[in-house]
Amino acid sequence: MRAVDLIRKKRDSGEHSREEIDFLISGYTSGEIPDYQMAAWLMATWIRGLNRSEIASLTESMLCSGELLNLSDLPSKKVDKHSTGGVGDKTSLILAPIVAAGGLTVPMISGRGLGHTGGTLDKLESIPGFNVNLSLEEFRHVLRECGMGLIGQTAEIAPADKKIYALRDATSTVENIGLICASIMSKKLAEGIDALVLDVKTGSGAFMKREEDSVRLAEVMVETGQRMGKKVVALITDMDQPLGRMAGHSNEVIECIDILSGRGPADLRELSVELSAWMFFLGDRTKSVVEGRALAESLIASGHAMERLKHCIRLQGGDDLIVEKPQLLPRARSVENVPSPNSGFITATNCEQFGIALATLGGGREKKEDSIDHAVGLEFHKRIGDGVEKGEPLATIHYNNAAKLAEARSLIAQSYVIGEAAPSEERPLIRRIIGG
Amino acid sequence: MRAVDLIRKKRDSGEHSREEIDFLISGYTSGEIPDYQMAAWLMATWIRGLNRSEIASLTESMLCSGELLNLSDLPSKKVDKHSTGGVGDKTSLILAPIVAAGGLTVPMISGRGLGHTGGTLDKLESIPGFNVNLSLEEFRHVLRECGMGLIGQTAEIAPADKKIYALRDATSTVENIGLICASIMSKKLAEGIDALVLDVKTGSGAFMKREEDSVRLAEVMVETGQRMGKKVVALITDMDQPLGRMAGHSNEVIECIDILSGRGPADLRELSVELSAWMFFLGDRTKSVVEGRALAESLIASGHAMERLKHCIRLQGGDDLIVEKPQLLPRARSVENVPSPNSGFITATNCEQFGIALATLGGGREKKEDSIDHAVGLEFHKRIGDGVEKGEPLATIHYNNAAKLAEARSLIAQSYVIGEAAPSEERPLIRRIIGG
Repeated sequence: MRAVDLIRKKRDSGEHSREEIDFLISGYTSGEIPDYQMAAWLMATWIRGLNRSEIASLTESMLCSGELLNLSDLPSKKVDKHSTGGVGDKTSLILAPIVAAGGLTVPMISGRGLGHTGGTLDKLESIPGFNVNLSLEEFRHVLRECGMGLIGQTAEIAPADKKIYALRDATSTVENIGLICASIMSKKLAEGIDALVLDVKTGSGAFMKREEDSVRLAEVMVETGQRMGKKVVALITDMDQPLGRMAGHSNEVIECIDILSGRGPADLRELSVELSAWMFFLGDRTKSVVEGRALAESLIASGHAMERLKHCIRLQGGDDLIVEKPQLLPRARSVENVPSPNSGFITATNCEQFGIALATLGGGREKKEDSIDHAVGLEFHKRIGDGVEKGEPLATIHYNNAAKLAEARSLIAQSYVIGEAAPSEERPLIRRIIGG
Repeated sequence: MRAVDLIRKKRDSGEHSREEIDFLISGYTSGEIPDYQMAAWLMATWIRGLNRSEIASLTESMLCSGELLNLSDLPSKKVDKHSTGGVGDKTSLILAPIVAAGGLTVPMISGRGLGHTGGTLDKLESIPGFNVNLSLEEFRHVLRECGMGLIGQTAEIAPADKKIYALRDATSTVENIGLICASIMSKKLAEGIDALVLDVKTGSGAFMKREEDSVRLAEVMVETGQRMGKKVVALITDMDQPLGRMAGHSNEVIECIDILSGRGPADLRELSVELSAWMFFLGDRTKSVVEGRALAESLIASGHAMERLKHCIRLQGGDDLIVEKPQLLPRARSVENVPSPNSGFITATNCEQFGIALATLGGGREKKEDSIDHAVGLEFHKRIGDGVEKGEPLATIHYNNAAKLAEARSLIAQSYVIGEAAPSEERPLIRRIIGG
């Protein structure tokens, strides 16, 4: 088998066998196939596409490029959630303690923020002392002790994905459903889980802006996971506006603590409970999603979920006093309101722009190497459908560096669409459920 | 400007400006743009295509990546010919001396054989002492002295093409009309010529098997050359069977000497005279192609063309005694006939297979690094339309190594299609003329 022939095959819209995909992935991971041949194959694949069977092969082949986390010594079922990302999307820090408190194991290997989206690892690192760089052995220990753990991708997990993702980023071959699916699923399946709940975002703040694209990606990921014997469900959820009221790293940790304390915004609470309920149901902890919801609610109300979060923070080296004293988290030096330019109703937001505004303030990164300011953030006062008076604050900016303030303020002001009447249609937070 | 954005643009079927193509080509030539980004762009380009204006930009940009041969001190017009290659395609060694003897300058920068096709440089190197690796200064001297010269691509000429061609070969992005055109035309235009005659082969022994593909490539090359102010014409010529009776390096040199001596096969003579006539016409040496034909015929008959070839061989370090004594050329140790399996008429040949048979004997190369046996060759006794008796020789194999003989014999025997009647339709050697 020769890489050049496989490139030609995909270029001419051919279908790859499992063996051919294995040859490409193992050859590339070991360095026998050079970057330039993989780049040509990725572009041919981006344009010609992969069918369901090729996507399953690619996912499995990338999964097998590294180690599989063996958690068989833990008696409980292992479940995880993955979100395709958005603005204010912070459910991981809420649902992991809920589900762990409910008796399941949540071995969460997460990513960092890139572009307009936030990343779980970055949020965790706003907690003083919290260490996301555990070895797999240390991770196993944390999971055994408290039923949850939150770390970054290690060198052992799906190394093919790490190498291919960097190449896709440099060759404009990122946005392809087959390649996205294989990248996400190979990492998640390496966690040795029994079940996975996918939160596929749709709308102006999501990678997939159109609902039909989100549905297609969800269907492919669900099918790929099921082919490998996992229980998988995908919720298509709204990202036409930020989730919750807070964006930014410290800000989002505080909002998660609010939810686990029984407070906080309704949309974030609803989605966190719903995702937890599906994890309980797929993990055989409850007989239905309805029962799962009730269990999640009770674990918040009893304070058990919060206790679990504090335990995990301590085990990963963090200071769990932040739960009682949020002022221990990095806080921005200054705040400034963004006033509404006129009176009316919020009819839509350009949600991606909020993420870009946050990155502009230093709370995001354009390139992987960029450092991040955990203290800066945005607070959203108005949601779609809300009335607003001219001059009333739409949002509050938490900033450290005044140089970028004007740019961020202008991005935020432009992101709100203000009309004369509230939109007549109610847009549900959870749009569709795939594979449930 | 960023390469990743230009890759995305072509991926999404966008049209590049001249500046964008310059950015890609100069960045890649200098090493600032890495192989993997160029590979992704090449694949996007292979699939999405280039329009006429992009092809002209790419050609000019690749041309400008290196030096242009300055021949302005030579008073005569400079003309050249390029063929897309085939089996037994040896007209360069005939027409260069004819056209030089007619008073024009032929600064021919040629290539080597690859796959099933032969290359002019390899044929020349069967002549003892002949040096194709002249510096541009030495080349200029030879041209000044005898009006013709035959060398290989130097490092100074279109270095972008050299680098891109190697990458295309490894990434299955060779067969694309825009990329082929830019590769050929950038090298030819770097010769500082006034006019160019293109011999675009079509048929079973050509790269372009279908006449419509050959015509499209010819049209694009003619238009690209004309955009740059050159006189260009393309002849679409038959490659459904070998040109002349001989294939192999020494064999082909001998057949060229035959033609320049007033002997040799009619098809090779016809095409050589026709191409020479167009060169005379485009080079303003004659008022018409008809007049050009008569001039070419007279320069063969007078022996002036042969004298010119001998002069060039001497100037480039070769032994011109081979013209009188062909036995000085490397000759194969053994010959074997390929008998016809039955009686009938030759109705077609799989011409590419003859080239592969020759390469199998050692007279061609699969990879650029392979060495070549100049002595081996094929002699074709039957042409399409000829009658043949069972057992009568179809071809004769000149070989040195018996190990590969059976494979070559079988390839050759299978390449002749023998029917009960001669094909009713006469296939002309020169199918169409584009841009004349």
